[in-house]
Amino acid sequence: MSSIQGSLEEIDKSLKDVQERREKLIKGTRDVVMLCSKSIVALHHGQLDDAKGKMDQARAMLEEFRKYAKQDLYRYIAVAEQELVEAYALRAVMESAPLPAMKDLQVTGESYLTGLLDCVGEIKRLVYDRMRSGNERHAEKLFATMEEIYNAIYPFAVYDNIVSGLRKKLDVARMLIEDIRAVVTEESRRRALMDAVGNFEKGVSMQ
Amino acid sequence: MSSIQGSLEEIDKSLKDVQERREKLIKGTRDVVMLCSKSIVALHHGQLDDAKGKMDQARAMLEEFRKYAKQDLYRYIAVAEQELVEAYALRAVMESAPLPAMKDLQVTGESYLTGLLDCVGEIKRLVYDRMRSGNERHAEKLFATMEEIYNAIYPFAVYDNIVSGLRKKLDVARMLIEDIRAVVTEESRRRALMDAVGNFEKGVSMQ
Amino acid sequence: MSSIQGSLEEIDKSLKDVQERREKLIKGTRDVVMLCSKSIVALHHGQLDDAKGKMDQARAMLEEFRKYAKQDLYRYIAVAEQELVEAYALRAVMESAPLPAMKDLQVTGESYLTGLLDCVGEIKRLVYDRMRSGNERHAEKLFATMEEIYNAIYPFAVYDNIVSGLRKKLDVARMLIEDIRAVVTEESRRRALMDAVGNFEKGVSMQ
Amino acid sequence: MSSIQGSLEEIDKSLKDVQERREKLIKGTRDVVMLCSKSIVALHHGQLDDAKGKMDQARAMLEEFRKYAKQDLYRYIAVAEQELVEAYALRAVMESAPLPAMKDLQVTGESYLTGLLDCVGEIKRLVYDRMRSGNERHAEKLFATMEEIYNAIYPFAVYDNIVSGLRKKLDVARMLIEDIRAVVTEESRRRALMDAVGNFEKGVSMQ
Amino acid sequence: MSSIQGSLEEIDKSLKDVQERREKLIKGTRDVVMLCSKSIVALHHGQLDDAKGKMDQARAMLEEFRKYAKQDLYRYIAVAEQELVEAYALRAVMESAPLPAMKDLQVTGESYLTGLLDCVGEIKRLVYDRMRSGNERHAEKLFATMEEIYNAIYPFAVYDNIVSGLRKKLDVARMLIEDIRAVVTEESRRRALMDAVGNFEKGVSMQ
Amino acid sequence: MSSIQGSLEEIDKSLKDVQERREKLIKGTRDVVMLCSKSIVALHHGQLDDAKGKMDQARAMLEEFRKYAKQDLYRYIAVAEQELVEAYALRAVMESAPLPAMKDLQVTGESYLTGLLDCVGEIKRLVYDRMRSGNERHAEKLFATMEEIYNAIYPFAVYDNIVSGLRKKLDVARMLIEDIRAVVTEESRRRALMDAVGNFEKGVSMQ
Amino acid sequence: MSSIQGSLEEIDKSLKDVQERREKLIKGTRDVVMLCSKSIVALHHGQLDDAKGKMDQARAMLEEFRKYAKQDLYRYIAVAEQELVEAYALRAVMESAPLPAMKDLQVTGESYLTGLLDCVGEIKRLVYDRMRSGNERHAEKLFATMEEIYNAIYPFAVYDNIVSGLRKKLDVARMLIEDIRAVVTEESRRRALMDAVGNFEKGVSMQ
Amino acid sequence: MSSIQGSLEEIDKSLKDVQERREKLIKGTRDVVMLCSKSIVALHHGQLDDAKGKMDQARAMLEEFRKYAKQDLYRYIAVAEQELVEAYALRAVMESAPLPAMKDLQVTGESYLTGLLDCVGEIKRLVYDRMRSGNERHAEKLFATMEEIYNAIYPFAVYDNIVSGLRKKLDVARMLIEDIRAVVTEESRRRALMDAVGNFEKGVSMQ
Repeated sequence: MSSIQGSLEEIDKSLKDVQERREKLIKGTRDVVMLCSKSIVALHHGQLDDAKGKMDQARAMLEEFRKYAKQDLYRYIAVAEQELVEAYALRAVMESAPLPAMKDLQVTGESYLTGLLDCVGEIKRLVYDRMRSGNERHAEKLFATMEEIYNAIYPFAVYDNIVSGLRKKLDVARMLIEDIRAVVTEESRRRALMDAVGNFEKGVSMQ
Repeated sequence: MSSIQGSLEEIDKSLKDVQERREKLIKGTRDVVMLCSKSIVALHHGQLDDAKGKMDQARAMLEEFRKYAKQDLYRYIAVAEQELVEAYALRAVMESAPLPAMKDLQVTGESYLTGLLDCVGEIKRLVYDRMRSGNERHAEKLFATMEEIYNAIYPFAVYDNIVSGLRKKLDVARMLIEDIRAVVTEESRRRALMDAVGNFEKGVSMQ
Repeated sequence: MSSIQGSLEEIDKSLKDVQERREKLIKGTRDVVMLCSKSIVALHHGQLDDAKGKMDQARAMLEEFRKYAKQDLYRYIAVAEQELVEAYALRAVMESAPLPAMKDLQVTGESYLTGLLDCVGEIKRLVYDRMRSGNERHAEKLFATMEEIYNAIYPFAVYDNIVSGLRKKLDVARMLIEDIRAVVTEESRRRALMDAVGNFEKGVSMQ
Repeated sequence: MSSIQGSLEEIDKSLKDVQERREKLIKGTRDVVMLCSKSIVALHHGQLDDAKGKMDQARAMLEEFRKYAKQDLYRYIAVAEQELVEAYALRAVMESAPLPAMKDLQVTGESYLTGLLDCVGEIKRLVYDRMRSGNERHAEKLFATMEEIYNAIYPFAVYDNIVSGLRKKLDVARMLIEDIRAVVTEESRRRALMDAVGNFEKGVSMQ
Repeated sequence: MSSIQGSLEEIDKSLKDVQERREKLIKGTRDVVMLCSKSIVALHHGQLDDAKGKMDQARAMLEEFRKYAKQDLYRYIAVAEQELVEAYALRAVMESAPLPAMKDLQVTGESYLTGLLDCVGEIKRLVYDRMRSGNERHAEKLFATMEEIYNAIYPFAVYDNIVSGLRKKLDVARMLIEDIRAVVTEESRRRALMDAVGNFEKGVSMQ
Repeated sequence: MSSIQGSLEEIDKSLKDVQERREKLIKGTRDVVMLCSKSIVALHHGQLDDAKGKMDQARAMLEEFRKYAKQDLYRYIAVAEQELVEAYALRAVMESAPLPAMKDLQVTGESYLTGLLDCVGEIKRLVYDRMRSGNERHAEKLFATMEEIYNAIYPFAVYDNIVSGLRKKLDVARMLIEDIRAVVTEESRRRALMDAVGNFEKGVSMQ
Repeated sequence: MSSIQGSLEEIDKSLKDVQERREKLIKGTRDVVMLCSKSIVALHHGQLDDAKGKMDQARAMLEEFRKYAKQDLYRYIAVAEQELVEAYALRAVMESAPLPAMKDLQVTGESYLTGLLDCVGEIKRLVYDRMRSGNERHAEKLFATMEEIYNAIYPFAVYDNIVSGLRKKLDVARMLIEDIRAVVTEESRRRALMDAVGNFEKGVSMQ
Repeated sequence: MSSIQGSLEEIDKSLKDVQERREKLIKGTRDVVMLCSKSIVALHHGQLDDAKGKMDQARAMLEEFRKYAKQDLYRYIAVAEQELVEAYALRAVMESAPLPAMKDLQVTGESYLTGLLDCVGEIKRLVYDRMRSGNERHAEKLFATMEEIYNAIYPFAVYDNIVSGLRKKLDVARMLIEDIRAVVTEESRRRALMDAVGNFEKGVSMQ
């Protein structure tokens, strides 16, 4: 068997390297994901500075991990990338700024698409918050944003066999949008009622 | 084994033909489905001409694929047919035209039934859009259409073992209808209140 | 093996009989279920005579099938019995008559319990229809009926291991009732406002 | 195998004991749960004495079962404890008394947390009933209580891996609270209008 | 709801009865199954008297439980019946007696068929034990018995939809038989070789 | 809805026809499969005439059912066709006749391929039976036939996506063949030893 | 909410403690399991001293973890206990010493039962190793030990609802035993052949 | 949404490229796998030139596909690489040449390891064929090769989490080796006897 011994030693060395990089990535990306999650919570609580700090830290860490991932272990940083896209997109939506480009975040196309779709769920939560604080106009604008993201990404459904989970995320986003359509409609009708009542009230009190 | 060689060559030839037609259908019907989806989006955005163009293109393509499908691969165009029915039915509903007949679209009975049921979900979306723009009358008419489609197809539930997924689609349609029943009822009561207030206001100002 | 041949022949004969009765029941109860479904639709459309005709026909057919079912195939008519209870109970509710007793319908206890619970969903639909036509009083009475059925059957939850699906149907009924509680409350408040406005209007016009 | 025979006999004896205690607990806690459920129904119907009687009986029974449960079968009384917390908490809310402390009820921390969260759903029902009887002030106070319970327990979400189902119950409570927020807001607007009409009426009649 | 109260009380009483009988059967048949299992172990160890004692006790207990089972809970004694058939059939095979008739054991046809098939696995074990003790002749006779049982029951495969698990048990029996076919063939060839060698030896020594 | 009524009636009529043909096929093909199974058992027992009778009857029945199946329900006779191929192929193998051509049996290519592969398992059984009766020469010829069938069909593995289950049947056949390779090898070695002993014996006795 | 604040603080403190102990156990028992696995490998390689060292270390560590586990987290050390039983039992089997008693190892009854059953799989491996080194006598003794362990634990099958996974482990053990029955039988027959051949050889050479 | 349009177009372009390369690889590697399979069959039939031709063709094609696979789609050529290793290794074994090095075949470490393990199964087949043609010496040398390959790769079991399926292939190889160990042992005993008989015969004839 001496003829294969050389090959086996070489393989052993390379697998040891993969093993080590893999462990580093599993542990490390967990922290990146956690930072992104916390920055999203912070955004929802209006703590913009805190959120920005965490997002930028997550982005810097990810940059680092990309070196360990190389091409062969890229799938181990996919979730972290996706969360990063979600966080940056939510921040843009809240600041009424344009959504970040893929190049800005240096992520893969897959992460960009799925991260944006995950962001639709966060915008849903924003709609409720805006409506609760009486900001119906903003709520409707956010609803439009949800629809636009969905419509822009929908044609990528044909790539479902190579972007795993894309179609499922599209289905989820669609459901969220239909929920919000119902809620926004209800609110606009309630608003019409309130306006009618308000006008009447004014009329009465002016008499 | 020379005795089976002739048979095997014959089979090889015929399976090669099936393989090729199948690949053509998988790719091609994907485009038909996408065209129908886009035409439905266009209908919802009020872009009727764009929608019509896409639907007619989809229909023409489907005609073509039917030749490749023959009888043995018919299941590969079922989803595309279903989407086509959904699109044409939605267009008829929006234009207050009669729903298309099965023969008009040249689809199978299965595709016709399931396509119509899928259309119920699209009409639900219309109801919300109509209500948001204050068109309560049209919303109620659409609600009636949803119920009529459901009631007309419901008796086919007995064929669930040969029209796969029919009962499930019926259950979904039923849930959508009950949702809309609640929404339409609420709106009619709100309208009654607004009318009461409005009449009163008029009465007061006429004093 | 001659020693078991006699037993096997006996078994063959008895299984053939089971097979035949089973096929009859599967086909036949399908029709009973369909008749009950149609009678429920008719009740909702106010076609009482049509409904009664179908229900009585279903009941007569079921009587017949009970003979084929004997004890060993009783589970094959369970769904049909349940639908029958649902239909007769809904009719009683619509006619403000007392709900039918188990003995009247000659069904098993299981079918009686689950049929009544399924009827709660049909009453929900009635509530909306009554409210839409402005009949708030009846809507509230129907709501009370829903709660009474639920409360009367709730203690049977302890038999969930022998009445399969009972707890799930109880959970569904509970959710429907809470939905209607919200709707009825909202309507009563709306009514209070309309009354206030109406009284004022009257007062003003009487000045 | 004589060497393991002694151990096996010992195990057999101890498993028999577990078996018996387990059966007692399964049957017995079923009754406790039923008593708590009934006491909650009684509370909603305003039958306070009946409710108190049942709750105290449930609590006494649970005390007894705790002895059988010891530490190893504690999970078999978890549901019963939870229901007890829900009942006592609801009673406190209805009597505007302080919520019971964990020590008062002698339950585990897990049962205390989840029982309180389940109580949020019962308070929702109270809100509707109070609103229907025109007691808007109380409805708003109950809404505040719902929010306070939620906010106090929310930080425990980090223990979701050891308090099973906690996060899910938190999500459900959150949804219930948002529903009630919308309802209470609408009612307050309606009330404002009714007050305006009332004041105007008074002003007119005083003219 | 007073109209359904009578029915509900009746149902409660009958479900309580079912509950009690069911619990008795679950516990009791567990003992019957255990006795049959032990009698089969005893048969394999050649302790015929012990085995007979246990089998007869199991049979007597089953007689008793049949009363509690009546028709509606018959499924709760199916497993016990099946094990009884397996034990009595194995005993007959070991004593080279005719297999017991269904009537002798008073079991249902389903239990008879499935019990006989399960016995095929026990006979397989016997074949190995016989071969190990050099009793090749008996091993071949047992193999023939396995095949005969299989062939006699095989035509009942058409009743798989009403005798649940029959086809699966047939498949298992078939596999066991093919295993034994291989083993028995191998042994007969080994025997042929040993005979050749033995004859030769005799011939040489007789020279 | 009158616009779809015509289509629905048409569909109802066509589905009723499908339903009826389907039921006929399910029942009828069951008998064909049973006849083929029995003919295979008869072949193994050397009852050639009985086997031929059953096979020819099965073939005639299948001819009849093909009319009901048309193209759309062809999958309902696939199993029956497959069994027919298996039976005719086994008969040819036993009679050392050439394997039947696909055209002779008028089956589809799929049924032909899978039926031949299933026949490999039956030939395995033949090998054991031949070896047990000392017919080593025939056993080796049968082994060669197994390999030839496998090698001839193996290239069709590339069509696994359109001939469902083909690859799995190939894997099973491969395993069976490797089993038999071991058995045949062992036997040939045994035979070599017996020959050595036999020759020696002869040599000695001729001295 | 001040009334529940005290309870919540108490719960927070206790859950923090649980959290910490739980993490310690998850990490620590992983090492215990690893040590036991390695000691079993060492036993199979005949490195008895190495194995003993590792087993004793594992046992000491487990002692330590039992303190953290207390009663409430006992399930977290169940797997480790089970592996310990498996290792000590295997060592006893290899040294032909009596199996260890539950008390010797200070484990729970559940761990003792399931650990012994897992040991059956390791003994199977021993059987193969002994047979390969020609020690047929020992192989048969080990086979007897496998059967004895199985028969001794089999009656505990009735506790399957409280000793999770017991029945499944019994089924696996049964299958392993039947495999070994076949292997041991085959070997004894082979041995008989070898003996016949050997005697012959001796006879020939003695002439 | 114009801000993401640029990114989406870029992604679309890159996914289209992936899609096309993927389809090419799926189709193409299917041919490579088929060529390797056929070359292995040819090797077993002693058609060395034919085998070499096919293997070299497969290797050249794989070289080509590696360009399409780049790093991101490498997994699509893994199976083909593995088959190539299996074929080249088998050829080396048959020609008693040293096994090919990883570098010679330009495959990944994973493909090299798993391909060599798969080759163990092919060598098993060779052993039987050699034994059948009486070439015992070669059979034993092949057995040694099987063991050497297994032992050399066994330490890689620790990388099972990154070389998917490695441990399973190791287990399969282990079983195959044990099968062959029994067969080779038995044969060596038989050979001893044949030699003894031969020597005796010679002795006798020389008398």
